[in-house]
Amino acid sequence: MPPSIITLTTDFGRADTYVAQVKGVILSINPDAAIVDVTHEIPPQDIMRGSIALGEMWQTFPVGTIHVAVVDPGVGTSRCILCAKCDDRVFVLPNNGLLSHVLKAKPADEIVELRDQSFWRTSVSNTFHGRDIIAPVAAHLSLGVPLSKLGPPAGDVTLLDFQKPRFEERQLFGTIVSIDRFGNLITDIELAHLRQIPTTEFTVCCKQRRIERISRTYADYPPGTLIALPGSQGRLELAIVGGNASLQLDAKISDAVVLSW
Amino acid sequence: MPPSIITLTTDFGRADTYVAQVKGVILSINPDAAIVDVTHEIPPQDIMRGSIALGEMWQTFPVGTIHVAVVDPGVGTSRCILCAKCDDRVFVLPNNGLLSHVLKAKPADEIVELRDQSFWRTSVSNTFHGRDIIAPVAAHLSLGVPLSKLGPPAGDVTLLDFQKPRFEERQLFGTIVSIDRFGNLITDIELAHLRQIPTTEFTVCCKQRRIERISRTYADYPPGTLIALPGSQGRLELAIVGGNASLQLDAKISDAVVLSW
Amino acid sequence: MPPSIITLTTDFGRADTYVAQVKGVILSINPDAAIVDVTHEIPPQDIMRGSIALGEMWQTFPVGTIHVAVVDPGVGTSRCILCAKCDDRVFVLPNNGLLSHVLKAKPADEIVELRDQSFWRTSVSNTFHGRDIIAPVAAHLSLGVPLSKLGPPAGDVTLLDFQKPRFEERQLFGTIVSIDRFGNLITDIELAHLRQIPTTEFTVCCKQRRIERISRTYADYPPGTLIALPGSQGRLELAIVGGNASLQLDAKISDAVVLSW
Repeated sequence: MPPSIITLTTDFGRADTYVAQVKGVILSINPDAAIVDVTHEIPPQDIMRGSIALGEMWQTFPVGTIHVAVVDPGVGTSRCILCAKCDDRVFVLPNNGLLSHVLKAKPADEIVELRDQSFWRTSVSNTFHGRDIIAPVAAHLSLGVPLSKLGPPAGDVTLLDFQKPRFEERQLFGTIVSIDRFGNLITDIELAHLRQIPTTEFTVCCKQRRIERISRTYADYPPGTLIALPGSQGRLELAIVGGNASLQLDAKISDAVVLSW
Repeated sequence: MPPSIITLTTDFGRADTYVAQVKGVILSINPDAAIVDVTHEIPPQDIMRGSIALGEMWQTFPVGTIHVAVVDPGVGTSRCILCAKCDDRVFVLPNNGLLSHVLKAKPADEIVELRDQSFWRTSVSNTFHGRDIIAPVAAHLSLGVPLSKLGPPAGDVTLLDFQKPRFEERQLFGTIVSIDRFGNLITDIELAHLRQIPTTEFTVCCKQRRIERISRTYADYPPGTLIALPGSQGRLELAIVGGNASLQLDAKISDAVVLSW
Repeated sequence: MPPSIITLTTDFGRADTYVAQVKGVILSINPDAAIVDVTHEIPPQDIMRGSIALGEMWQTFPVGTIHVAVVDPGVGTSRCILCAKCDDRVFVLPNNGLLSHVLKAKPADEIVELRDQSFWRTSVSNTFHGRDIIAPVAAHLSLGVPLSKLGPPAGDVTLLDFQKPRFEERQLFGTIVSIDRFGNLITDIELAHLRQIPTTEFTVCCKQRRIERISRTYADYPPGTLIALPGSQGRLELAIVGGNASLQLDAKISDAVVLSW
C-alpha cells in the first residue's frame, strides 16, 4: 500500500519551528505518512493567497491525498475547522474562506465540522490549532478514519468574495491575482474567457502598457519584450522576456488587465 | 516497521547545497530514512537560536526520532561531537551548547562523544563535519547502532548560560527569547511562573508600553490592540491583534518584559 | 526494496506552488518516490548556478538516484530535454548547459533526448515542462523504465563555457564561483591545483586584500582574520573568522583570486 500523502500549505514561514511541530504531531500518530511542503510563505494571515495556492495545486496530487492548510487569523475564536472531500482529495482547514478556490473548481462531496475531540491532541492551545487539532486529524484521516467520525455535517462554509473577469462591449476586464518568483503577472482571465472573444486580434493593456499579441512561450520574442501568453495555470499571464514584469511595470496584485478588440 | 525519522536543524540556509549533501550522505547509508527539515534558517553560527529551536520541537516527534543539529562555528577545532539520548529521542550535535534547552527540559539518559571513525565518512573535511561525521552517524543510528558503539561517555557537556526569569518584590522580570514570523514576542516566562503570581490583576510592560490584561487568543480584542497571552509554546507572548508587535514596538530578542502587581 | 530517490534543483522559489505541482505529478505516478529538495533558490534563469549546484551534490546521493533540474529560460522553444546516466545516477534536465559540471566530473554513459510522449502528461503546456514532461519522466524512471525507451540518443549536448584556473609564471589565476550563506568565497581552484604549486609559501590576493597563509579550519585564527582554506567542496575558499567575507570584502561571483609565490 502506498504511503498516505499529507500536504501542508501555511503562513508559518520556515525560520520558526511551527512547521516542524505540525510534522512531529502527524508522524507521532502515523509514522508512515509522506508529508509534502507546498509552501509556508503565504503572507501572514492572507487567506486569499492561501486559497489561491490550494486552488493551483490540489488536483496535481493523487486521489486520496490529504491537503492541510493553515492560515488562521481567527484561531481560538468561534470559527470552526472543516474537513471536506472534493474529487477524492480531502481538505482540513479553518472555515475562513481558504477552501474557496477549490470549491470554485469542484463542489464538495462531503463537508464536516471537526467536533470529536478524541482525534485531537490531549491538550489543545488557543493559539495553535494547526498543531493541536488539524495535524492530528489529518494523521487520523491518513490512517483511514472516515470524515463522518470527525463531526457533524458543516453548516455555512465561508467563501471569499472574489471578483470575476467581466465582458463589457468589446472589452474583457480582468485582474492580476498572482505574481510569481519570475515577476510574471498571472491574471484571473482563463483560457475559456479567451475563447469567448470573437477575434484573435485583440490588445492587452496593463499599467498603461499595450501588448499587441499573444505569445506561445516566454522566449518567442527578443529579451525585454512585454508579452501576454496562456500560462501553465490555465490563465492569461503577462511577462517580460528574460526580465521581471512585476518590477519593470511596477505591477501589483489586484491591478487591472484589460483586453480590447 | 515504520521508517526511522531524522530531523535536521541547521544554519545552512536553503540556497546552498549543504543541506542536500547531508541528505545524500544519510540516504546513501539508509535509503529508508525519513528526513524532516526543521529549519535551516538559524542565523549563521547562532548557537542560542539553534538550542531554542531544538527545545521547542523535539518532544512533538515520536519516540525513536533522531534529531540532528548543526550550528558549528568551531568545526574542525578540538570541540567534540555528542550523541545524547533524552526521553527516548536521540540527538547528534556539536558539544557547544546546542543541547542546552533540551537538557533544561529533561536530563539525558546517556551521552557519548563520537570517536569511532568507522561510522564516519571515509574522508573527513575540516570544515563540514555535518556532512562527514554527523550525517553518517545519524544514518547508522537509524539502522540500529547503539550509542555505546559510537564512542566513550562524554566528559563535560557545554551548556549555554541563559538568564532565567526572576521574581523581585511584586514584579517578575523576563526576557524576549524568540520573535516569530508574525512578529509575536515570545518570552521566557512560563505558565508555571504565571501561576506563582498571587493575583490575576497584573500589568505587563515592554518597551515602555503597558498591557493591562491577559488575552486568550490573538483575536479577542480589536485590530491594533497590544495583548499578552499564554502562547502555544507554553510561555507568555506579546502580540498585536492583526499586526506585528516586533515592528510596531521596535522590540528585539533580549529586550525586557516586566510583570507588576 | 528501498524507495526511489528523486532530487529537485530549480529556480522556482518556495513561495509559489510550482514545486508542489511537480511533486504532485511525480507522486501521482509513483506514490512511493522519496522526493528530496536540493534547492529552489537558484537565481531565476541562472543556468550556471544550477549547473554548479548539481556538480556539488550529485555524488553524495546513492547510486540509482534520479536528479531533476529545472532552470529553463528556453521552455517551449526548440531546446530539447535530456535524460543522462553518469556514474549510475540519472539526470533529467533541459539541454541548456545545466549538465556541464556533472560532465566535467564524469563522462556520461548514456544520454537520450526525451521524445516518447507516452511518458509525458496528457496535456503539455508551453511554459512548464518541469511539471508536464520532466516530472512524469522522472517518475517513470523511478518505476524502472530504461532510458532507451524515452527517446533516441541525444545529438549535441550543450555545455557552458566556464573559465578554468590558469597558471602563469609564478602565479595561479582563479575565480570566485560561489558565495555561501556564511559569506565564504568559494573559488574554482581545486586542491589538485594547489598541489601543483612548487612551494607552500604562497600568498592569496582578492579584492586588493592579501592573505599570507592557508588555514585548516574556520576558527584557527582570531575573529576578523581573513583566511584562505581548502574547503569542503574540494576547492580553495576565502573566509573571515566569525564574519562574512563577501560583505566585508565586497566580493562577488566572478571576482578574481590570485595566488603568487
